[in-house]
Amino acid sequence: MNVNFQLDAESPIPIYRQLYGKLRALILSGDLQTGARLPSSRRISRDLGVARNSVIAAYSQLAAEGYVTSRRGSGTYVKDSLPISKSAAVHKKSFNDQSLSTWGSHVLMFGDPQPKNEIKGKPPIDFGFGRSFPHIFPYEIWRRLLARYLSTDDAMLSRYGSAAGFNPLRQAVAAYLRRMRGVNCTMDQVVIVSGMQQALDILSRIFLNDDDDILVEDPGYVDAYNLFRTFGVNLRALSVDDKGFPVGLIPSGCRPRFVFVTPSNQFPKGGAMPLDRRLALLDWAATADALILEDDYDGELRYSDHPVAALQGLDHQDRVIYLGTFSKVLFPALRLGYLVLPSSILPIFLKAKELVDRGAPTLTQAAVADFIDEGHFERHLKRLRKVYGLRRQTLTQGLDFYLPALLEYSPVKAGLHVMLYLPPELDETSIIKRALSEGVGVYPGGPYHLHQPSQPSILLGFSGLSRSEIEEGVKRLARVINMALEE
Amino acid sequence: MNVNFQLDAESPIPIYRQLYGKLRALILSGDLQTGARLPSSRRISRDLGVARNSVIAAYSQLAAEGYVTSRRGSGTYVKDSLPISKSAAVHKKSFNDQSLSTWGSHVLMFGDPQPKNEIKGKPPIDFGFGRSFPHIFPYEIWRRLLARYLSTDDAMLSRYGSAAGFNPLRQAVAAYLRRMRGVNCTMDQVVIVSGMQQALDILSRIFLNDDDDILVEDPGYVDAYNLFRTFGVNLRALSVDDKGFPVGLIPSGCRPRFVFVTPSNQFPKGGAMPLDRRLALLDWAATADALILEDDYDGELRYSDHPVAALQGLDHQDRVIYLGTFSKVLFPALRLGYLVLPSSILPIFLKAKELVDRGAPTLTQAAVADFIDEGHFERHLKRLRKVYGLRRQTLTQGLDFYLPALLEYSPVKAGLHVMLYLPPELDETSIIKRALSEGVGVYPGGPYHLHQPSQPSILLGFSGLSRSEIEEGVKRLARVINMALEE
Repeated sequence: MNVNFQLDAESPIPIYRQLYGKLRALILSGDLQTGARLPSSRRISRDLGVARNSVIAAYSQLAAEGYVTSRRGSGTYVKDSLPISKSAAVHKKSFNDQSLSTWGSHVLMFGDPQPKNEIKGKPPIDFGFGRSFPHIFPYEIWRRLLARYLSTDDAMLSRYGSAAGFNPLRQAVAAYLRRMRGVNCTMDQVVIVSGMQQALDILSRIFLNDDDDILVEDPGYVDAYNLFRTFGVNLRALSVDDKGFPVGLIPSGCRPRFVFVTPSNQFPKGGAMPLDRRLALLDWAATADALILEDDYDGELRYSDHPVAALQGLDHQDRVIYLGTFSKVLFPALRLGYLVLPSSILPIFLKAKELVDRGAPTLTQAAVADFIDEGHFERHLKRLRKVYGLRRQTLTQGLDFYLPALLEYSPVKAGLHVMLYLPPELDETSIIKRALSEGVGVYPGGPYHLHQPSQPSILLGFSGLSRSEIEEGVKRLARVINMALEE
Repeated sequence: MNVNFQLDAESPIPIYRQLYGKLRALILSGDLQTGARLPSSRRISRDLGVARNSVIAAYSQLAAEGYVTSRRGSGTYVKDSLPISKSAAVHKKSFNDQSLSTWGSHVLMFGDPQPKNEIKGKPPIDFGFGRSFPHIFPYEIWRRLLARYLSTDDAMLSRYGSAAGFNPLRQAVAAYLRRMRGVNCTMDQVVIVSGMQQALDILSRIFLNDDDDILVEDPGYVDAYNLFRTFGVNLRALSVDDKGFPVGLIPSGCRPRFVFVTPSNQFPKGGAMPLDRRLALLDWAATADALILEDDYDGELRYSDHPVAALQGLDHQDRVIYLGTFSKVLFPALRLGYLVLPSSILPIFLKAKELVDRGAPTLTQAAVADFIDEGHFERHLKRLRKVYGLRRQTLTQGLDFYLPALLEYSPVKAGLHVMLYLPPELDETSIIKRALSEGVGVYPGGPYHLHQPSQPSILLGFSGLSRSEIEEGVKRLARVINMALEE
């Protein structure tokens, strides 16, 4: 046998591993047949110009893994008993959809996110939704809080955390929610999750069976709806008005497992549920034996008056599960959300959570806990409300000025975007395309609707833009829309 | 109406929020009836000694949320239309198990973790398994890497990451696995997850249907088995020997969906699968149309010879899914694991992952990527192997010396624990109790077994103890065992 491998002395892979790999490949391919004698380590060392120790190490690795066997004084042989030819002979079968579970095949059907927010190449003025605010977040404080735990509590990092979350964070979230969102809870009811999606997923897994009904808002948070669909449920969508979810329009006899609502600021249309609707929803849920999932994704970001308290605070019947996230008000890459569970649901949720995911990184949780406890969080929110409030004002004033009377937009002064309903004769896609050619990125409202609405709509996120960019963007958008109307 | 609320000026809750809360509670309880006139803001201000602006703010919040209405010049009234009495009248129904999904009720059945590793009050010498090594991890470097991203790439934190993981980390893991674990993969096949449990959960959801068979090792990683059980599957357990999973003993006609194995270092018994078994398993999987889940939880920690390459590297038929974790070799609170998927399974896995969880925190992923790329990871592993190798040696030498000939223990020099099989006449629980009264924490092997073995066993984790503690612990344990044998 001649050896003329190319070994690479510059590679980070040690010579012996390279040699081992080459020989292993020859054995597995059958080029070095079972029973064949390998060249002596001395010979390979000489032929390849490598240290003999490397050859010996490679041989010993091959022997340890059962590819070769050494007979003292006689040399090294490829093992007889390797069932290699058999392995190579079996035809490679490719994966096919029939081997999926029911859930898996639903994922194939519903798992493609709708292209809501994708534009190739970032336009100069991008009204993308969900962009956040690198320039507002107090990184200096955040760094200091992280560093605190990195230097003082190493032991904390070396333990598995609790699946329910890091207790000081649960405590801080509970206190914050009681104080600022009117949520009625103890820290035990607070569970930290990796985000809204994980909270919804675990709840769905616990409660949903095939063919269950779920009541949702239309338009709405379609990422949640796509997730629900993978459980084989029927989505019953009610069209929202400017007061959010229309409780009075729930068909009698409707017995959904969940009703998913955004009472503080309807997503994406805007609008808050007034008290009478809230109380009616709670009553209805008790009668219908339904759970209410309250998605309070940006309840903190209200610019005109005080934030509306959460629906959860009105619930005396353990019907409401409150869902919150830090993605919007801290930053998305944090990957932290939380839910507040009625105590009757807590045990099953925690068992499920522990089985499927052991919890979020302790370090980040500890830093967020301190961020809240030391008042940085509320100061940051105040600042966000101020900055975003001004940006929102610039946007709505611009729309009023450049597109007067033509457009309705969502009335509530909250959130991070404005939804704009266009005259019915316009085409969403073509407006978006033409705006893009003017350097302005706006996004279709269509994908958020379950039933196609009579009016086309677009979403304008304002959190990632300066006020002058917003003004310039609106000006260009108005030009596009006015030109389209004249055609 | 008389007002004599206790408001707390020292509270972090602003006075207006306190007042709002008290009034809201009175309205919701019916103590302030619909149509009732609230005292004037001037009067409340005087009675309670608070600023009038606070009272006005409280009233305006109540009005904004629809509890009260103001008539100019006439005062503030509790709204007529509140359906409050109705809400209070509905009887509170408590949650019951019948409302759970099939999966949810399985969680209730199987979700209680067995008490493997719980001892109240830490004993002075604790042979707990899974404890890690705060004194070995290079915190200084870790801090520096985290700080790097905190100061240079703020924008990175403000975006949602990819559900597949942060690309530089996927790249680093792929390169590391190719180089050190013989895994055959590109970075596209690597998906970052929040830990082993999440990887197993998503795979189970994609592939498992009620009544499927799953082949597993006995004893084994019961946390995975409990998770599998929630999918309504049948666990078929084969007793491992000192060469790991006994491929030859798979019953003919057995057509499991998954076979779950720990080929590099059988958990918890120890032992590595030799090459012939590995090849036979691959052949069998192709014939049986099964997927092999290779749990390589501590493949890096082998002390005697070079680490055995992964089973995945031998697979030419897209049958093996490789699972790894950073919990054992970095630290558990990091909450990062990874899997390497055959490209045929990749699309469905990513769709599912994106639906249920948007990915791990970017910052930690970026820091781990650099930790690997800059060579710290392999240096750290080298150091772990050295330190743990010595601890393991101390443990096994101690067992040989103090308990000669009485005990067999797992033969492979790998991992973070040693499993000790005791003479059949001894009782696991009583040995553990008596050891504890000597200040030594050891842990039962029973919970890791699906079929009760003929011999009792205990687990001795050595990663959290110094060599002198290990020696002292073994001495005391030997005393306990010898005394029990003499009774």
